[in-house]
Amino acid sequence: MLKEKIHQPGSNLVFYSLTPPKATTQPEQVKIIAGKQIERLQGLPIDGLLLYDIQDESTRTEKERTFAFQSTITPEEYSKNYLASLQVPKVIYKSIGNLDKEQFTTWLQANQHIGYAVFVGASSHQQVEATNFSLQDAYDLRNQYAKSLVLGGVTIPERHTKKGDEHQRIFNKINKGCSFFISQCVYSLNDTKNLLSDYYYAGLDNDKMLSPIIFTLAPCGSLKTLQFMEWLGIEVPKWLYNDLKHSKDILSSSIETCKNIAIEILNYTQAKNIPIGFNIESISIKKEEIEAANELLKDVLQLAKSTGTSAGSLDLAKHTDKLQMIS
Amino acid sequence: MLKEKIHQPGSNLVFYSLTPPKATTQPEQVKIIAGKQIERLQGLPIDGLLLYDIQDESTRTEKERTFAFQSTITPEEYSKNYLASLQVPKVIYKSIGNLDKEQFTTWLQANQHIGYAVFVGASSHQQVEATNFSLQDAYDLRNQYAKSLVLGGVTIPERHTKKGDEHQRIFNKINKGCSFFISQCVYSLNDTKNLLSDYYYAGLDNDKMLSPIIFTLAPCGSLKTLQFMEWLGIEVPKWLYNDLKHSKDILSSSIETCKNIAIEILNYTQAKNIPIGFNIESISIKKEEIEAANELLKDVLQLAKSTGTSAGSLDLAKHTDKLQMIS
Repeated sequence: MLKEKIHQPGSNLVFYSLTPPKATTQPEQVKIIAGKQIERLQGLPIDGLLLYDIQDESTRTEKERTFAFQSTITPEEYSKNYLASLQVPKVIYKSIGNLDKEQFTTWLQANQHIGYAVFVGASSHQQVEATNFSLQDAYDLRNQYAKSLVLGGVTIPERHTKKGDEHQRIFNKINKGCSFFISQCVYSLNDTKNLLSDYYYAGLDNDKMLSPIIFTLAPCGSLKTLQFMEWLGIEVPKWLYNDLKHSKDILSSSIETCKNIAIEILNYTQAKNIPIGFNIESISIKKEEIEAANELLKDVLQLAKSTGTSAGSLDLAKHTDKLQMIS
Repeated sequence: MLKEKIHQPGSNLVFYSLTPPKATTQPEQVKIIAGKQIERLQGLPIDGLLLYDIQDESTRTEKERTFAFQSTITPEEYSKNYLASLQVPKVIYKSIGNLDKEQFTTWLQANQHIGYAVFVGASSHQQVEATNFSLQDAYDLRNQYAKSLVLGGVTIPERHTKKGDEHQRIFNKINKGCSFFISQCVYSLNDTKNLLSDYYYAGLDNDKMLSPIIFTLAPCGSLKTLQFMEWLGIEVPKWLYNDLKHSKDILSSSIETCKNIAIEILNYTQAKNIPIGFNIESISIKKEEIEAANELLKDVLQLAKSTGTSAGSLDLAKHTDKLQMIS
């Protein structure tokens, strides 16, 4: 059971994530899309499938959105009506930004069959003021009406570099009932390690258990996707941006990059026994990027699942190994 | 000859650097200090010895200096009178911040025996205004009066992250006659790679030759030294700061860190044929830190000199190697 695995040391959870098809898609077409997705994931030892709830975030930034916003089938509906035959736990994202207290309570009560969920807060302060309903309120309502719902939280390493308190946000969310965390797509190892470090030492200093942080990795197949990543607020270090931009094959370069990020995160966290995991997604809906995400998923499954139990050994091995190789 | 090696592809220069003893030290004592330094370096295949010219930088920052400022014997005097028996090229630092045009011209003419020098600009704008003499003026005077003096420049990767134009400053200094660059002590791999990347791609785009950048590495033996590094403006990533602070043996942790930084810089630059090198220094004058710097010097010599000719092979080897090791 995913619920137990979340708390198991060294389980190195691996998720895959999808955005449901556009709301205007004909049911027959949705079935075909879902069939393909099921086929790709069937048989892979993933721990869960995340289903995103995409909202129009135009109030978050004044920059133009690279790919136009289009509303989708809700993840709970897509999961129930189209993905039931895929035997993996589904984690349902729920954006609460456009809801008020009553609407959210209704949603909670209508969706008691859901086992796992991640609530996503408003993308701007204006939105919170408009609805008078915050993420904290959503957590309170879940504690009141849906205690058995296993809750994940969102975490953003880039925010830690700007504000320095992302680890405290995580601990606050743990207090509110979250038992695992999913990051925004990460390309900045420095931001990621800074967050992990402060999270780790704050846990040590205050004798607190750490909940796993699942880091999202996504291949990038074109300059347009790279621009969209910027729009989403994903930090790509300048040197990496330059390399991807100049790469003759940006997609395979980005897969290599994502694998290296996974390896570095594993090296860093295993030495400290910090519980982590990975979530693979495709940012765009282009066929090549989806296939690349699938390839990356298989590689990351191998990396994460084979190192899950040998905590602490990788870091040292890596360094001695490199030194020996060079000298 | 160092002069030729600077332009030789793959030569991976390795320097060691020293600050001369305090000006108030008795000549007999200076001889003893110099004797020990010569003994430590004698026989090591270093390409040069950098001799710093320390200035009171109190106008640069309002923060209190961790280690009190004390003026030293000038590097040119220390080199000539005490280190003549050490058969390595000496690179003389010369701070021009407190000088005017006339004083600097006099210095240049009185020191025609110097083969290699690095001019260091004023540490604040106030200083430049006070003397009406800038680094650009110093370069012009060298071109006028000391054309045969081989000139190095200072570069600061952290400044690149703030201003984004450090690679242009390097190219400007190359135009003014600099043929190699020495960085401030680096602990931030991200800043370092960002600078290298922009330098590399600007060189490619404008069909310009790259001059080597020598990256300074320095062990850190105590929290006090770590604080002094902060005062100097050296960026230490938060995760690394946390690890060093919590380390049971901060000195040996920092040596490992410096070695890993050297390896990562070698991996990154060899794949692109960017000319680089290393300079090892001890930030404090504590015996343990000086010994640690010496140990690091030997390790870095081995790393840099054994990989100097196999450009491009390390990066790939590293990744496949790690993947194989893990899977």
